[in-house]
Amino acid sequence: MSAFLILEVMKRYNKHIFICENKRPEGHPRGCCSEKGSVEIREYFKLRVKELGLNSEVRANAAGCLDACEFGVSVVVYPEQIWYGAVTKNDVDEIIQSHIINNNPVERLKITHPRYNKDASKT
Amino acid sequence: MSAFLILEVMKRYNKHIFICENKRPEGHPRGCCSEKGSVEIREYFKLRVKELGLNSEVRANAAGCLDACEFGVSVVVYPEQIWYGAVTKNDVDEIIQSHIINNNPVERLKITHPRYNKDASKT
Repeated sequence: MSAFLILEVMKRYNKHIFICENKRPEGHPRGCCSEKGSVEIREYFKLRVKELGLNSEVRANAAGCLDACEFGVSVVVYPEQIWYGAVTKNDVDEIIQSHIINNNPVERLKITHPRYNKDASKT
Repeated sequence: MSAFLILEVMKRYNKHIFICENKRPEGHPRGCCSEKGSVEIREYFKLRVKELGLNSEVRANAAGCLDACEFGVSVVVYPEQIWYGAVTKNDVDEIIQSHIINNNPVERLKITHPRYNKDASKT
């Protein structure tokens, strides 16, 4: 019965990671995530998710502008809607290990602006 | 105290609508959402969200491939992770009115494959 109930509430993805790949013209005052290497970051997320055998329940997805340009590279993880900023390729494994696998969001990478994560503890 | 608690759990977006804009080469066996008009659909979502004054808490976002190509145009709404398929521009106002505003997902548009919506009632 428990197993049945768990199956009932399961969704297509347990974790859906959206990486902003928006590209603005060079010199735009808001900048963009693409110029900060987001395409490579998304590809590395995708590679690691696959290597770890998580790809049936986790997806690393390209996204258009997430409207967090100033904090880019911006990444939002659903269903929790945790917003990460200034993400680099070096952060990907920690996000996957801590947040995606162990359900423990990476505090140091959360966007601290309260518009995004109301509870962000990064200073 | 209640108001404080509500504020604490509020997220950047109450509803985050991702519309697949993936584009595959013409003739690809899986097809793609872009060739079915998803860019125009996303633009219309965005326009209506703004016209209705919802844009501070709702975002219509472009997404890369959501891996639901066969059901496209594919749209997924978070935080609930409701998957819609075969969405047309004519469906946008109903999704906004029923789901985004009144929190009542549009059953007739849900992807029925159980991999996406476990509870889909569309036949």
